[in-house]
Amino acid sequence: MADAALFEFLHTEMVAELWAHHSDPGPGGQKMSLCVLEGMGFRVGQALGERLPQETLAFREELDVLKFLCKDLWVAVFQKQMDSLRTNHQGTYVLQDNSFPLLIRMASGLQYLEEAPKFLTFTCGLLRGTLSTLGIKSLVTASVASLPTCKFQVVIQKT
Amino acid sequence: MADAALFEFLHTEMVAELWAHHSDPGPGGQKMSLCVLEGMGFRVGQALGERLPQETLAFREELDVLKFLCKDLWVAVFQKQMDSLRTNHQGTYVLQDNSFPLLIRMASGLQYLEEAPKFLTFTCGLLRGTLSTLGIKSLVTASVASLPTCKFQVVIQKT
Repeated sequence: MADAALFEFLHTEMVAELWAHHSDPGPGGQKMSLCVLEGMGFRVGQALGERLPQETLAFREELDVLKFLCKDLWVAVFQKQMDSLRTNHQGTYVLQDNSFPLLIRMASGLQYLEEAPKFLTFTCGLLRGTLSTLGIKSLVTASVASLPTCKFQVVIQKT
Repeated sequence: MADAALFEFLHTEMVAELWAHHSDPGPGGQKMSLCVLEGMGFRVGQALGERLPQETLAFREELDVLKFLCKDLWVAVFQKQMDSLRTNHQGTYVLQDNSFPLLIRMASGLQYLEEAPKFLTFTCGLLRGTLSTLGIKSLVTASVASLPTCKFQVVIQKT
């Protein structure tokens, strides 16, 4: 089964295509490309959220939903579970993946750190979209301190 | 496992994105988007071709390579085999999929036939790219007579 590779290759091509055609060299063009990627991730996340095993969707608490992302969603997309989940119990969650698959093929020098955000944005959207399908509004950002470790921060938006 | 769905959703988003941002309404813009999609498919196909089971790659004949696409590649990407393979024994092959997964969610009215090409182009590139990795230059086109049946025509380019 080459499925996992298929998604990764397609993701890589998509990032490259958006960077080649959408971007002015300046920060405005890059921001536009990031927005497009995040939107695509959001819609894919929404659709995936509807297909993931329904019996697990009877969540009682917010924390259950976040655990679902770390386990079921991550396995469905990346064939592995998230490495850790922390929360301040006030609506902020930090999901850490110690070897994030979409970064793992990047060389690990510090000079590549600045290239990392464009490989994280789709997945931020994916998390936000899945949460949205599960009835939770959120803001999702990502950060990398050392490749290929990656942290996703989810801030729940109370209505 | 939501993998199959993941690829399909991402493919749908990619087609939609290219159509929304790349295209003039006219045929020139659409042709440009089709070219971009075909190129993405080609590069993903090249990369997949390098990862598919190496022991099966000791092909003696062209026909073996085409059978490999119909079986191993199709299973890796679409979790099913191609339904039929025909050839004129002069370098032209017709691969038929009676329910092509990227078309199967489209409504089946005749009025949707004209929308079909943009859902086939990535896969044409995928076939051409995998063949390229296996050392064969080709032209690949696709046609749909009635949804969701689809024929891919592979014409080998002799050097």
